[in-house]
Amino acid sequence: MLVVMRPHASDAEIARVIEMIQSKGLTPHPLPGATRTAIGMTGNTIAVGKDAFEVLPGVEEAIRVTKPYKLASREMKKDDTLVHTAMGDIGLKNFTMIAGPCSVEDEATTMKTAEFLLSRGIRFMRAGAFKPRTSPYSFQGLGLEGLKLLAKARETTGIGIVTELMDVEHAAAVEEASDIIQIGTRNMQNFSLLKRVGLCRKPVLLKRGMCATLEEWLMAAEYIMAGGNYDVILCERGVRTFSDHSRNTLDLSVIPPAKVLTHLPIFVDPSHGTGKRQYVAPMALASMAAGADGLMIEAHPDPDHALSDSSQTVDFHTLDEMLGQLKQLAVIMNKQM
Amino acid sequence: MLVVMRPHASDAEIARVIEMIQSKGLTPHPLPGATRTAIGMTGNTIAVGKDAFEVLPGVEEAIRVTKPYKLASREMKKDDTLVHTAMGDIGLKNFTMIAGPCSVEDEATTMKTAEFLLSRGIRFMRAGAFKPRTSPYSFQGLGLEGLKLLAKARETTGIGIVTELMDVEHAAAVEEASDIIQIGTRNMQNFSLLKRVGLCRKPVLLKRGMCATLEEWLMAAEYIMAGGNYDVILCERGVRTFSDHSRNTLDLSVIPPAKVLTHLPIFVDPSHGTGKRQYVAPMALASMAAGADGLMIEAHPDPDHALSDSSQTVDFHTLDEMLGQLKQLAVIMNKQM
Amino acid sequence: MLVVMRPHASDAEIARVIEMIQSKGLTPHPLPGATRTAIGMTGNTIAVGKDAFEVLPGVEEAIRVTKPYKLASREMKKDDTLVHTAMGDIGLKNFTMIAGPCSVEDEATTMKTAEFLLSRGIRFMRAGAFKPRTSPYSFQGLGLEGLKLLAKARETTGIGIVTELMDVEHAAAVEEASDIIQIGTRNMQNFSLLKRVGLCRKPVLLKRGMCATLEEWLMAAEYIMAGGNYDVILCERGVRTFSDHSRNTLDLSVIPPAKVLTHLPIFVDPSHGTGKRQYVAPMALASMAAGADGLMIEAHPDPDHALSDSSQTVDFHTLDEMLGQLKQLAVIMNKQM
Amino acid sequence: MLVVMRPHASDAEIARVIEMIQSKGLTPHPLPGATRTAIGMTGNTIAVGKDAFEVLPGVEEAIRVTKPYKLASREMKKDDTLVHTAMGDIGLKNFTMIAGPCSVEDEATTMKTAEFLLSRGIRFMRAGAFKPRTSPYSFQGLGLEGLKLLAKARETTGIGIVTELMDVEHAAAVEEASDIIQIGTRNMQNFSLLKRVGLCRKPVLLKRGMCATLEEWLMAAEYIMAGGNYDVILCERGVRTFSDHSRNTLDLSVIPPAKVLTHLPIFVDPSHGTGKRQYVAPMALASMAAGADGLMIEAHPDPDHALSDSSQTVDFHTLDEMLGQLKQLAVIMNKQM
Repeated sequence: MLVVMRPHASDAEIARVIEMIQSKGLTPHPLPGATRTAIGMTGNTIAVGKDAFEVLPGVEEAIRVTKPYKLASREMKKDDTLVHTAMGDIGLKNFTMIAGPCSVEDEATTMKTAEFLLSRGIRFMRAGAFKPRTSPYSFQGLGLEGLKLLAKARETTGIGIVTELMDVEHAAAVEEASDIIQIGTRNMQNFSLLKRVGLCRKPVLLKRGMCATLEEWLMAAEYIMAGGNYDVILCERGVRTFSDHSRNTLDLSVIPPAKVLTHLPIFVDPSHGTGKRQYVAPMALASMAAGADGLMIEAHPDPDHALSDSSQTVDFHTLDEMLGQLKQLAVIMNKQM
Repeated sequence: MLVVMRPHASDAEIARVIEMIQSKGLTPHPLPGATRTAIGMTGNTIAVGKDAFEVLPGVEEAIRVTKPYKLASREMKKDDTLVHTAMGDIGLKNFTMIAGPCSVEDEATTMKTAEFLLSRGIRFMRAGAFKPRTSPYSFQGLGLEGLKLLAKARETTGIGIVTELMDVEHAAAVEEASDIIQIGTRNMQNFSLLKRVGLCRKPVLLKRGMCATLEEWLMAAEYIMAGGNYDVILCERGVRTFSDHSRNTLDLSVIPPAKVLTHLPIFVDPSHGTGKRQYVAPMALASMAAGADGLMIEAHPDPDHALSDSSQTVDFHTLDEMLGQLKQLAVIMNKQM
Repeated sequence: MLVVMRPHASDAEIARVIEMIQSKGLTPHPLPGATRTAIGMTGNTIAVGKDAFEVLPGVEEAIRVTKPYKLASREMKKDDTLVHTAMGDIGLKNFTMIAGPCSVEDEATTMKTAEFLLSRGIRFMRAGAFKPRTSPYSFQGLGLEGLKLLAKARETTGIGIVTELMDVEHAAAVEEASDIIQIGTRNMQNFSLLKRVGLCRKPVLLKRGMCATLEEWLMAAEYIMAGGNYDVILCERGVRTFSDHSRNTLDLSVIPPAKVLTHLPIFVDPSHGTGKRQYVAPMALASMAAGADGLMIEAHPDPDHALSDSSQTVDFHTLDEMLGQLKQLAVIMNKQM
Repeated sequence: MLVVMRPHASDAEIARVIEMIQSKGLTPHPLPGATRTAIGMTGNTIAVGKDAFEVLPGVEEAIRVTKPYKLASREMKKDDTLVHTAMGDIGLKNFTMIAGPCSVEDEATTMKTAEFLLSRGIRFMRAGAFKPRTSPYSFQGLGLEGLKLLAKARETTGIGIVTELMDVEHAAAVEEASDIIQIGTRNMQNFSLLKRVGLCRKPVLLKRGMCATLEEWLMAAEYIMAGGNYDVILCERGVRTFSDHSRNTLDLSVIPPAKVLTHLPIFVDPSHGTGKRQYVAPMALASMAAGADGLMIEAHPDPDHALSDSSQTVDFHTLDEMLGQLKQLAVIMNKQM
C-alpha cells in the first residue's frame, strides 16, 4: 500500500502516517517527490484497510499496489528514480557509461584504463576483484588486493568504481572500495546476499539472472529495496536460450516493459550479452535506441592479453568509435552523455 | 566451391567454367559482381578438386566454402545482395519500410492503408490473404478474394505488395499478386514450400522459425536459392524462450552475426517480436541501430477493430511518429529511407 | 459445445440434434461411446445457447467446452480414444511399438527389418520415403520409389507402415502406402497439410513441434480432427531448450498433463529425443513409466551404415534387449504389448 | 591428471606420489578403490608431464583428464561413488527416498512426518528451515528455530535430515543439524557457498540450476569436491524452458549422460519438476526407469494447508501408493529400496 500525502503536508502529518504504519506491524518507506511525499509500506498488508490512512490529516489517498514487487513498482513511485553518486547522477535524462576490464589485473592496467576513461568523459570504471568463475581451477580474481588497486585508482584519478560482490563476507570491503556495488547474474537470487546489500549505503547494479523473468528480476530488486537501499540499477546482460550465435541472447525487448513496470534505471551489458567483441558496438547502439539509461562495456588496453573474457572485450580505439556513435544517437534520444 | 574469375575474364572463359562444373554433375550458379564474375557450384563437391578449375584460362582461384549453406554464405559472395523490385531496391544503403494490417480485411481498409503509406514514402504494404491461425475455428483470411483486393490496391496506387504464401497450391496466385512473397515462421522448415518458392521470380521474405538457429535459418534460405531464386530477405520476428514479458523474445543480437555470415538483407518485425503495440516503436529504432536493412510493421487505421493481431498493431499516428524518429536515426546510420 | 444424449436415445433423436446443429451453421461431430452417443459441434458457437439443444427429446445435457481445442479435449470425450488399424488397436491398455530405419534405403534392408520386427511381435515399421532434411544438398529420401518398397514390404510380410507426409501433393500416395501417416515436427503448424490429412482415412501420428506448447500441439490435432479424421496419435520427440547434453530435451513430463487434457493416445520417440543411441533404451523405459501409449524407435540392421540419423539408431540386438525390459515394465504398468 | 597405482602399491609408494604432486604446487586427491588406489591432482597441470609420475615405483600409469571437471569425472574415478551416511549408503544398487514438507512448520507436523516416513522404510526427511523465496515479504522459513525442530526429530526418531543451506553464515549450524546438506537451484553457482560446503564433512545434495548445462552442474560439483568434500549427490529438479504445462521442464534425459560422465549419484525432485501434485507419481516412476539413484518428494500430512509449495506436495496416502509402484519397478531395475 502507498499513502500519498497532499502537496504541502506538514512534517508532523507525515510523521503521523509513519507512526500509524508502524503501529500495524508494517515497515514504512518514505518516498519524497518533487511536489509531494508518498509513504510506501511493506509487510503483510492484506488485512490493512485504506480508510485507516485516508482519514488522517494531510493524506490525499491510499493506493493498493497490485504487483508482487512494491517499492520497485511504478505504482508506488511514478517518477523515474535518479540514483545519486559522487561521480554524477544516473537515470532520467542521463546516459551513463561504465567501462573497464573484466578483472582487476595489475596497477598499470588499472591506472591506464581509469585515465583513458576519464579522458573520454566516462566517469565509472568496472573491474572485478572477486570473479565468479565456472571452474574452481580458473583465476578467481585478486580479491582484497584487487580492491586496494581499485581504491588507489579512485583516489588518484577520481574515477567511480563498479565492482562485484560475491558474498556477505566481503560486503563491507566492497562497499568501501566501490561507488556502485555489482551483483552478478549467478547471484540474482542469492537472497542472503541481496538482503545484505539492502543494508549498504551505495547503489547496487543488479544483473538479470540467466533465466530470470522480468518479474523475478524486480522481486530481486525488491529484496534490496526492502532492506532500505532504494538505489538499484537494473542491468540486462543476456539470457539463456537455444540460440547459439552469441554467448547469450541479449534481450533488449525487456527495456520497454521494464520502463512501464518500474521507476528504476536500466543498463545493458552488451559484452556478456554477445560474447564477441565485434558485436558489442551495434548492440550498444541498439540498447540506447531501445531506451536504456546506460551501458556496461568490457574494455581493456590490450584485449588479446586480458586475463579473462578476452573474446568479448574491446580495445580503446573501438570504445572511442562506439562513443562517437552513441553521442550522435544521444541527441536524437534526448539523453545527456 | 566457388570459382572466382579474373577481372576481365571473357564470356567464353566463363562459359567453359560452367561447362566444366556441369560435366562433374554439379549445378553452376553464376554470381556477377561489380568488377568480376564468380561462379558458385552446389551438389556433392567433396570429390571435386580445385585444380580442375584453377588451370582453366581466366580463372583467378577456386575457393572451398566451409559453411553448410553455400549460396547464402558470404564466403561465396562478398558483396551485400541488393534485391531489386519494381518499387525500389532493398539492402545495402537502403532502409526499407513494410507496413500494413495483419490480414486483408476489406477494400476500404486496404485502399486507405495503401494511400496513407505512399503519402509517407512507404512503398510496401503487408497484408495476409492466407493466415496461419493456431485455431481451425479462427478467421483464416480472405484467401483468393484477399489477393484480388491486394492486386487492385497495387494497380490503383502503385504500392508494392508483401503477402504470405502458406502452401504450394497457391504459389502461382501469390507470386502473381505480390512483389515480395512472405514465408511465415511456422513454415521456415516446410521444405516442399521452400523448394517451390525457389522457382518463383519474386523476392522471398523468409521469417525466422520460432526456435531456429541462425544456421538453420540460412539453410532455409539456401533451399530457396538452390532452386534459382537468389532474392531472399531474412526477417527476424522473435524467438521462443522462457521470457514472458513479451509475446516472443525479439533477438536483435542475431543481426550483427547474420551480417558477417551472409550477404542477404535482414529485416525485423517488432510487431510479432513484442506482441504489444506500445513496445513496437522503441524496438523498431533499436533494430535500425543494430544494423537491420528494413522493418515490417503491423499498422491499421483502427487497430482496436483489426480482425487479427489487434494488440500488436499500431495506428497511423504512431507509425508517423516512429517514421520521424527512424529518419533521424537513418542519418547517423548512413541509411537512406 | 457438446450435446450428450441419453443412454438409449434413438437414431431419430440423434438425427434431430445433428440437424439442429447444421441449421445454426455449425458442424456436427457424432462421437459414439460405450453407453451413449455425444455430438460435438464446432464453428462459431458463441451465440448458440444450450437451451436450444436441451429441450430436444433424447438429450441429457449440453456442455460448453472451455478449451480452445474442442474435439481433442477430454471435456468433449471422456473415454480414451482407441485408434483402430488393420494391425491392431492403439491406445487404452495397448502399448504399441513402432520401429525401423530413419529412411527407406533399399529392398533388402526394408524386408530384413520388417521380418525382424514381426518376429519380435512388433507390428509397425517406420521408414521415411520423403525426408525433411536441413540441407537441400543432403539425401532427400527415395520419394515415390520408397513408397513402393514400403508397399511391397507390407504386402509380403503384413507389417504396418508408418511413414511421413511432407506436402499436400503426395498425400494420396502416402495415405495409400501407409497404415499411419506421420506429420513431422517441422510441419506441426503447417496448417494446409494438417487440413489435408484431416480428409485422410488413415490415423495420423502428429509429432510435437520443436517449441510447441501442449496447447498448440492439441490445436494442431484439432485441425486434423476438425476435418473429420478423429484418429490422431500424439508423439513427443523432444523440444528445443538451452540444454546441450542431448540433441533435444525429451519432455516426458508432458505425458501426464496430456492424459488429463486429451483423450488421444500419446507416443514418445526417444531416438530423436536423445539423438544418441546409448540413451534410447533408458528413455524408452522412462516413457512407458510416465504413461506413454507407445514408442517410435529408430532401428536398423547396421546402424553405423544407415543413410541418415546413424548416431541415434539402435541395432536389432539393442532393440531386443529394450523389448525385454519394456515387457517386464508393461506388467507393472498394466499394459499389453 | 590421475596417477593410477599398481594393485599392491605400498603406503610409502603412495606417499611418494603425493609428495611429488605437492612439490609441483598441485593438490593431491587420493581416491582409494576396491583393488587399487588412484591419486587425482588438481591445479594448473598444463606444464606437468606424465613421465615424472610414471617413473616412480608402484605407479601403473598417469592419465590426463580431458574434461574441465576432474574429480567429478568418470575419467578420474571409474566406479560409482557410494555416499555413506549414518542412515545408510546412497548410490550403486541402492534407491534412496527423501520425503517431507517444503518447510519445517512446527513440531507436530515434523514429528508426524518423520514417524510416517520411518514406518514406510524411508530414512531421510527433507524440510527447509531457511527458504529461498521469490518475494521478501513471503514466509522465509523458521531459521535456527527450524533447525532445532529437525535436530529434535532426528534425535527422537533416528530419521536422517536433508535441509537447505543458503549462506556461509549458517553453514556450521546446518552441517550440525543435517545428514545431507542441500544446495538449492538458485545457489548452484553461488561459488562462495560451494567452496564453504567443500569444507563440510556431510554429503551435499546439489540441485541443478534452473538453466544449467550438465557441464556447468558438474563444474559446480567440482567446486565442492576441490575443497575436499567428495560426497556430492546431484539432483535434477526441472529446468526452465518455453514449455508451460508444468512449473519447470523435468529433464530426465540428463540422467543417462550424467551416468556416463560422472561417478556421482543422481536424484530427481519431481515435485519441483512438475509443480503439480497429480504429476509427481508418474514422473517419480519415470525417474527410476531412466536410471536415477533416488528421489526427493515433497510430502505433508495435510498438503492443502502446507505453508509453502502446497500445489506440488502429495499427502501420505499418495506417497504410499507411489512407494508401492516404485518397489515393483525396483525389482526390474535391479535396485534395492
